[in-house]
Amino acid sequence: MFDAALKDAQARVQACFDAELARFEGVIGEAMRYTTTGGKRLRGFLVLEGARLHGVDPGDADKVAVAIEAIHAYSLVHDDLPCMDDDDLRRGHPTVHVKWDEATAVLTGDALQTFAFEVLGELIAPLRVRLALISSLAKASGAQGMVLGQALDIAAESAETPLTLEEITRLQAGKTGALIEWSGMAGAVLGEADREPLRQYAQSLGLAFQIADDILDIEGDAAKAGKRLQKDEEAGKATFVSLLGLDGAKARAKELVAQAEAALEPYGDDAANLKAAARFVITRDM
Amino acid sequence: MFDAALKDAQARVQACFDAELARFEGVIGEAMRYTTTGGKRLRGFLVLEGARLHGVDPGDADKVAVAIEAIHAYSLVHDDLPCMDDDDLRRGHPTVHVKWDEATAVLTGDALQTFAFEVLGELIAPLRVRLALISSLAKASGAQGMVLGQALDIAAESAETPLTLEEITRLQAGKTGALIEWSGMAGAVLGEADREPLRQYAQSLGLAFQIADDILDIEGDAAKAGKRLQKDEEAGKATFVSLLGLDGAKARAKELVAQAEAALEPYGDDAANLKAAARFVITRDM
Repeated sequence: MFDAALKDAQARVQACFDAELARFEGVIGEAMRYTTTGGKRLRGFLVLEGARLHGVDPGDADKVAVAIEAIHAYSLVHDDLPCMDDDDLRRGHPTVHVKWDEATAVLTGDALQTFAFEVLGELIAPLRVRLALISSLAKASGAQGMVLGQALDIAAESAETPLTLEEITRLQAGKTGALIEWSGMAGAVLGEADREPLRQYAQSLGLAFQIADDILDIEGDAAKAGKRLQKDEEAGKATFVSLLGLDGAKARAKELVAQAEAALEPYGDDAANLKAAARFVITRDM
Repeated sequence: MFDAALKDAQARVQACFDAELARFEGVIGEAMRYTTTGGKRLRGFLVLEGARLHGVDPGDADKVAVAIEAIHAYSLVHDDLPCMDDDDLRRGHPTVHVKWDEATAVLTGDALQTFAFEVLGELIAPLRVRLALISSLAKASGAQGMVLGQALDIAAESAETPLTLEEITRLQAGKTGALIEWSGMAGAVLGEADREPLRQYAQSLGLAFQIADDILDIEGDAAKAGKRLQKDEEAGKATFVSLLGLDGAKARAKELVAQAEAALEPYGDDAANLKAAARFVITRDM
């Protein structure tokens, strides 16, 4: 049931991307489409499930899912650049700067970010809802959210001592947590409902996701993951695994998944897919 | 009188930047402040003058000016990167990737773009006005506007034949024209007035500005301009000067300034500063 819901979300997000990105011409348009094709669509799935719980217009839900996936895609394109993580492979395909060049990658990331705000302006939801989504997305993705997390991550690479658990939790809260939290809450924002249950769910989920990522970096199969692994260990960077140990990290991830599931109680059985998603993030192999 | 108005605009924009950017910590916050200090503030000036003509709240006008200057600053930081224009100097100071590193420059540009949309969400103007500004800014700065122009500019560098006048006009309309047009119209959007006079003014002004830039690239003084000159000639790129000749380019710029001034007739003497700005863009030495 969760598998079917995830596949359905992937198809809906892809169809909406195809429709919305058709307007962009030339090499940047091509690269925007290239880099938004495929992927797990976890963030988009969270948006669509949260929207479904609040009876939101599905067309609006699709566009909000596309907006957050566009922000996620922009961050990956820039993060893969030689001056950042220097990755040649993403989802099993050449990264944008490898397939085209670095200038194209910079501009494609820039354009994907702009596009996310553009598409949120086009919803049929009331103006106050659109604006709430735009403002909260700006805060979550900017220099107090995702970009702050990325900067802390870069600083950690040249830090004299490895980060503490508190520091790495803060780094993660920005780098991956802020967008996952936004994705989880978006349905409640669209439905103008209490955001708290979904916020708590998404916060626990986001941290579990990052811990799972660190575990995957040690135990994973690069072919399945579609990206280079064991990077953090090579770089001598502190991770949840290096700080908690492999078993400790796994136990902490499980605990967070239980917390995420508990936060969804107000929604009862309707939240079965979101609960399954929480379990999925710590068992995935990609 | 124009000089005083421009200085006043520069001071207001800087004060608003100082207040608004204080919230951002760490190296990215520092680099955001560094790169938004100084500059001509032509775009901010256009916003403030247009807002004054429509009796708009000055606090809102300041924030809109800051938003467009943040987008302009982000585009410069990314444009200066080694993989793009590879410039070491901007406004007489080391560019962000020289003073810090490339990763910091990528993230700082990213964060400045996000910040622009964040600050537009904070206006006291009605929701429909804020959303109109956000949506039009996304369109003007994204892959159908500024980013498209930058991509066409990069493509022109490796083109087998130099661009035609029509192609270079289209390139300019994206690369610099779209933001200048948005800046010119923003006051009418804020005041919910007819945008057409300011749109026509800003369109002519934007093209005159670019032609003047091409003239400055040939005739200018690098020390005064605070950046490297004669780049286009060295690269064998088509410019308005190479296509129209130096005299032809000057004549065309004058003609556009006359058109820009004529478009302001509905505003009478109140638009004296904007008319002076049009004359300024073709006589400036920086």
